[in-house]
Amino acid sequence: MSLRHTVRIRWHLDDAIAFGPGKAELLAAIRDCGSISSAARKLDMSYRRAWLLVETMNRCFDPPLVASATGGSGGGGAKLTEAGLAVLAAFDQLQANVAAVIEAGQPSFEQHVRKTLAD
Amino acid sequence: MSLRHTVRIRWHLDDAIAFGPGKAELLAAIRDCGSISSAARKLDMSYRRAWLLVETMNRCFDPPLVASATGGSGGGGAKLTEAGLAVLAAFDQLQANVAAVIEAGQPSFEQHVRKTLAD
Repeated sequence: MSLRHTVRIRWHLDDAIAFGPGKAELLAAIRDCGSISSAARKLDMSYRRAWLLVETMNRCFDPPLVASATGGSGGGGAKLTEAGLAVLAAFDQLQANVAAVIEAGQPSFEQHVRKTLAD
Repeated sequence: MSLRHTVRIRWHLDDAIAFGPGKAELLAAIRDCGSISSAARKLDMSYRRAWLLVETMNRCFDPPLVASATGGSGGGGAKLTEAGLAVLAAFDQLQANVAAVIEAGQPSFEQHVRKTLAD
């Protein structure tokens, strides 16, 4: 057993959460699955919730992060735009940079942690 | 209107959240108010919730972060131990370091944000 961290970074624009861990996870799933509905299934999220997250992102960013092909029964799939890929990559990089800073600060906490729990 | 970030860092030890933004806020309030009950009032938190957060912290750290003086009607006050002051300072420093990293990464997101919303 040991001390470990979690961190949640969010970007806010006006009253909207423009980007954060949930939206990053959804974008990665859309990239991998090719549609909002299959991405939602993969993440065990309702289609409605996934659609609302995409709608918020597309309202906050220009060009939009997700391009949907309409038409066909069940919709025509969705994919990340170049902007979508760039924002997702920037968020992954930011999370990695932040994790490195937190890990560098870990000894300041670890030295105070109860040893009988921590060992 | 502009892009801004929020971030929540948490330290986990086994199944417990050993430390995070809520516990840091509570420690600062106990330091300033001199008792768990008045700290809870200041933060608009129930005494029971504040007490449980202190109990979790004191279970995860050794020596404990909060020293309570028992006795007297309404309890005898509480203060941060040296360990409590050190952990709170380490968390504040960590939050400042992380905020600097996130601010340094902000242009990667800002360039993609919708201008009619952002300006």
